[in-house]
Amino acid sequence: MANNQAATTYGHGKGIGATVGIALLGMGTVGAEVFRLINENANDFEQRIGGPVAVRGIAVSDTSKERPGVPAELLTTDAHALINRDDVDVVVEVIGGIDYPRELVLAALRAGKSVVTANKALVAAHADELAAAANAAGVDLFFEAAVAAAIPVVGMLRRSLAGDKIQRISGIVNGTTNFILDAMETTGASYEDALAEATRLGYAEADPTADVEGHDAASKAAILASLGFYTRVTFDDVHCEGISKITAEDIEAADRAGYSIKLLAICERLTAADGTESVNARVHPTLVPKDHPLASVNKSYNAIFVEAEAAGSLMFYGNGAGGNPTASAVLGDLVGASRNKVHGGRAPEDNTYAHLPIASFGEVETRYHIDMEVADRTGVLAAISNVFAEFGVSLRTVRQEDRGETARLIVVTHAARESVLADIVEHLSGLDDVHAVNSVIRLDN
Amino acid sequence: MANNQAATTYGHGKGIGATVGIALLGMGTVGAEVFRLINENANDFEQRIGGPVAVRGIAVSDTSKERPGVPAELLTTDAHALINRDDVDVVVEVIGGIDYPRELVLAALRAGKSVVTANKALVAAHADELAAAANAAGVDLFFEAAVAAAIPVVGMLRRSLAGDKIQRISGIVNGTTNFILDAMETTGASYEDALAEATRLGYAEADPTADVEGHDAASKAAILASLGFYTRVTFDDVHCEGISKITAEDIEAADRAGYSIKLLAICERLTAADGTESVNARVHPTLVPKDHPLASVNKSYNAIFVEAEAAGSLMFYGNGAGGNPTASAVLGDLVGASRNKVHGGRAPEDNTYAHLPIASFGEVETRYHIDMEVADRTGVLAAISNVFAEFGVSLRTVRQEDRGETARLIVVTHAARESVLADIVEHLSGLDDVHAVNSVIRLDN
Repeated sequence: MANNQAATTYGHGKGIGATVGIALLGMGTVGAEVFRLINENANDFEQRIGGPVAVRGIAVSDTSKERPGVPAELLTTDAHALINRDDVDVVVEVIGGIDYPRELVLAALRAGKSVVTANKALVAAHADELAAAANAAGVDLFFEAAVAAAIPVVGMLRRSLAGDKIQRISGIVNGTTNFILDAMETTGASYEDALAEATRLGYAEADPTADVEGHDAASKAAILASLGFYTRVTFDDVHCEGISKITAEDIEAADRAGYSIKLLAICERLTAADGTESVNARVHPTLVPKDHPLASVNKSYNAIFVEAEAAGSLMFYGNGAGGNPTASAVLGDLVGASRNKVHGGRAPEDNTYAHLPIASFGEVETRYHIDMEVADRTGVLAAISNVFAEFGVSLRTVRQEDRGETARLIVVTHAARESVLADIVEHLSGLDDVHAVNSVIRLDN
Repeated sequence: MANNQAATTYGHGKGIGATVGIALLGMGTVGAEVFRLINENANDFEQRIGGPVAVRGIAVSDTSKERPGVPAELLTTDAHALINRDDVDVVVEVIGGIDYPRELVLAALRAGKSVVTANKALVAAHADELAAAANAAGVDLFFEAAVAAAIPVVGMLRRSLAGDKIQRISGIVNGTTNFILDAMETTGASYEDALAEATRLGYAEADPTADVEGHDAASKAAILASLGFYTRVTFDDVHCEGISKITAEDIEAADRAGYSIKLLAICERLTAADGTESVNARVHPTLVPKDHPLASVNKSYNAIFVEAEAAGSLMFYGNGAGGNPTASAVLGDLVGASRNKVHGGRAPEDNTYAHLPIASFGEVETRYHIDMEVADRTGVLAAISNVFAEFGVSLRTVRQEDRGETARLIVVTHAARESVLADIVEHLSGLDDVHAVNSVIRLDN
């Protein structure tokens, strides 16, 4: 057998007209929208699926909480019992977190229920285990909502581009950090002030770590890379730098040079001189030319570029977060999983046949925007240029601003390896005339 | 039974490892790319499908033509015999035209072969007949490549947004006309000169009628509306105006007012005061504000906006034409159809359960940019304003340019019905002081 797919053909469905039983795990913003829309559009769901859907129960942590429009008899704290009901066919997980949802999703898959989840952290951390359980049971595991909410990038990679070869996936996949960076660029605010504003408006959570340190984007990068390169990439494989060190001065320097700073997730196929392929996934603040479409993605919007061999460049843009867009993605998956329960068949399963090695971050080549505080003295530029030359990295632009005793020197390099860049920064910092390397920000190629 | 879907569950597949036989109908630009990529990426296809694909034959009109890289023994002029071979499972139609491909696609579906086609004209004209044949046989009918090549809008409407309610689909879906309009805007060229340039560069065909008169875009609008609204919309239902009457003066006037002129396909759900819904699909030159993302879609690129109730606004952008992007879409469908042949199951079939009425073009509401030649005399503006007021249409802006004896008057209205606009233009033309209504161009809302 030439592949690692489940060694079964797919069975028959329940038959046209059969009711599909749904277990809803979680009743936060997304869960409430999912429940509301299932009821509001019941006839449409029935027509699109081939049979009606019925929510059999909703697992919550507190059944006594006021939930307008939700019949009390649907609520339960016993998620396992709900999942295992004979009349439940599809389980929708919108709880969040990792350990508890993992336990529930695995229980559901093992019980032969198809699963729809919006949980990027879970999928990015435990994809192999979840895929194995789904394959063993021959059921669907869907997670369109886990990446960029209603932007259907998961489905596109899984199906629409299944006949193509993906070279690169890059984009803005975290709305919170984009809101903060956009606010800093628009108003000149400091990082701290922009974060406070994002928190006040509900764009950032009380503990913003997962967003601002890039963890959320890294989970999404892992999922996108796994799908695009048919290779398992997990959260731990993703090099991750957040935006908490970006200063108003960085934003302003970028702006003057014609760039916006965006937190990008970048998944890349690397091809060595001998043709050997590997993949890399990373998240870091990135300078994007102001005339590039990504630069004009503002507020909490998301945008994803996909570069494929035959398709060329494709861009997808939309609302990357929020209850409604996330519910849209969950419900698209719910219709798909329910259709398969009625008609038989199964969606393309998780497939990591390519097993490409993960390239370390040091092997990645990119360009750099380096901002230094240097002594304002003859010969400084020569000394600095020498460091770059020693490491075989050529400079694209050099800009110097006098500041009395010292000068600010901003250097943009041609493409160089991350490992080389690290060495260069170390050497630059060791020069007497370099008082500080203020920031190193990468440029998107 | 509450729906119009095929009354069967889906059968078992051929089993993992089984070879999927392909019949390729047509060997033009797209067909040649499809064949090349099937061979080049054979291992990837096998891994993604669950079994190898083998091209059993290629139907062409002339087997003696030189075709580098294509084994002569695969070529045949007998398409029917090829389709009916026992070892053919999936038929790929990339011939073009309507009558002959229709005959072949129907023969394939009736023989139980799944079909992948890139033929927008065929699908837009005969969708009901094709869908009925596919449903009767329980096989797949895929046509992602028929709309905007590699931009996966068909799959998105069919699957990703299956749990949402689409309100509007609009966009640039014809590369030839976009190239011509972009050239006119960029260089100030006349329509005739820009068309000649497009022909010279291969963007326009020898007979450009289907593109420049909007027929190609109208086929795509029919397909998008059918998918988005679960209602059959055919080519004949689409109001269609092309770009052949757009003058350099129109482009220049639009430019000065802050607009680009784009040929848009617009599919809209209309809701009457009593809640009754209907749908409309249309293609016409449209003024797009220069800061709108559609305005910056240049050359032969395509972009499609989808507005859905829960998802909000989504935009998809990419290469809408050409051998490679079209092949990418065909191959994505080929992998999907082949997977189903191996594993069993079937993709969501054509589903027009909503059966919404088609609203006539007269019922559509939009804003208008009206360019008139008028007498340069006191009272002219009052007379013209009266006409609009009589029909209850208010004006948004009025701009007058003196030209000696006459003046040019450019009026932008608030939203009004097409039927009312037609009456207004008739009345305006009847005024003594209006020498000519030079152009009426719609504004995108």
